[in-house]
Amino acid sequence: MLIEGKNAVMQALLSNITINRLLVDKSIMGRKDNILSLAFDKKIKIEYLPKNILDKKSKTKKHQGFIAESIDFKYCDIEDILQNAKTKKEKPFIVLLDGIEDPHNFGAIIRTCECAGVHGIVITKNRSAVVNETVFKTSAGAVSNMLISKVVNLKDTINFLKEQNILIFATDAKGDSIYTKNLNVPIALIIGSEGFGIKPTLLKYCDGIISLPLKGKVNSLNASVACGISTFEILRQRLEAINE
Amino acid sequence: MLIEGKNAVMQALLSNITINRLLVDKSIMGRKDNILSLAFDKKIKIEYLPKNILDKKSKTKKHQGFIAESIDFKYCDIEDILQNAKTKKEKPFIVLLDGIEDPHNFGAIIRTCECAGVHGIVITKNRSAVVNETVFKTSAGAVSNMLISKVVNLKDTINFLKEQNILIFATDAKGDSIYTKNLNVPIALIIGSEGFGIKPTLLKYCDGIISLPLKGKVNSLNASVACGISTFEILRQRLEAINE
Repeated sequence: MLIEGKNAVMQALLSNITINRLLVDKSIMGRKDNILSLAFDKKIKIEYLPKNILDKKSKTKKHQGFIAESIDFKYCDIEDILQNAKTKKEKPFIVLLDGIEDPHNFGAIIRTCECAGVHGIVITKNRSAVVNETVFKTSAGAVSNMLISKVVNLKDTINFLKEQNILIFATDAKGDSIYTKNLNVPIALIIGSEGFGIKPTLLKYCDGIISLPLKGKVNSLNASVACGISTFEILRQRLEAINE
Repeated sequence: MLIEGKNAVMQALLSNITINRLLVDKSIMGRKDNILSLAFDKKIKIEYLPKNILDKKSKTKKHQGFIAESIDFKYCDIEDILQNAKTKKEKPFIVLLDGIEDPHNFGAIIRTCECAGVHGIVITKNRSAVVNETVFKTSAGAVSNMLISKVVNLKDTINFLKEQNILIFATDAKGDSIYTKNLNVPIALIIGSEGFGIKPTLLKYCDGIISLPLKGKVNSLNASVACGISTFEILRQRLEAINE
């Protein structure tokens, strides 16, 4: 897989992702540059190439002079996500994506979740965007720091999480206001696709359905914005509990 | 200006925007369709054309069979935004954009602000995205319901708003946590560009600088996601005050 663009390459270098080779626009050669210094420190093979060769190699067409060749993204198990929460001594905070197919949305959601302190994201094997070049770029490299688990179906995951005493909340238009719920609990939050929302077959397994109060006429938020508002409300409640 | 795509055309039809002509993919002719019914009711001239002609006309290349020809977007005065708040009997809630140049970000911010109940948005004449086809499409049509004012410089606007007893808050990395501030006040929130943030010359006029607590390593949110989290925190505090 190719990791492209300054932010994404920098984050990949700072993470545990294995990078086989770093391709750099040769006009950057010899310049003082944080990415080059770090790649040098990590003993990664750097190859300087003319810009037009990088343009040809690039899949996102927005490489900004840096393309890292990496082994494919390594998905984790759901247990790794729980372990991550345990290590940080925090209540589990997991996001389940039900049918996010657009890689830009997927990347933006990963970026948002990383900022909100989510311990891991679960996606489904079918009808989901997978981690690819576009996702890496859109996430501004946050993919490198996020545990992502790929499962056959979310229903089994939900049942497993319930056994671990994690509460399942879904974001949906027909729920209670998110601001009336106690979300400072071990939580898995389901985010649905922009077009179709969350499958009714999943909704019935949830411990609660939460809605954002919408004041406008259009009343539809972009999936990553909705994810940002919801995950930061969870973060807000957790911070408030710590400060009390 | 062209308004393209189902959502955007529908919202334009529901708003006060003048539509001269509606171009429709002729394969849709005769189908039961909400957009067609509404256009018919509003006595708008409908023209059925082959898909390839629509493809050629389309600027966003995502017309979904519907393109409305409209007169150009009408910007408002800052006074109209204040009047909007007054009519709704709400404390003014205004968003000032400092150098958002990307039309996708601008559209996403308008969509988000509409959902949060923002009374109006102020942009600058120079170095800002203007309302165009891409903004209309990205906003899912929310542009049709949003007052947008274009000013020469934000400093004068800030001074004018201060005279109206509106408090000016800026979102910036180096501020106090947004969750520690009373935002249930007449407010104008400045959002900076993704690359450069808010100009220091503007920051010094602000009544407060607020930050989102970020828990990750990447620690940079997309501008529209940051705008969503901030505006919904203001909405949350307002709703809480009403319910108390």
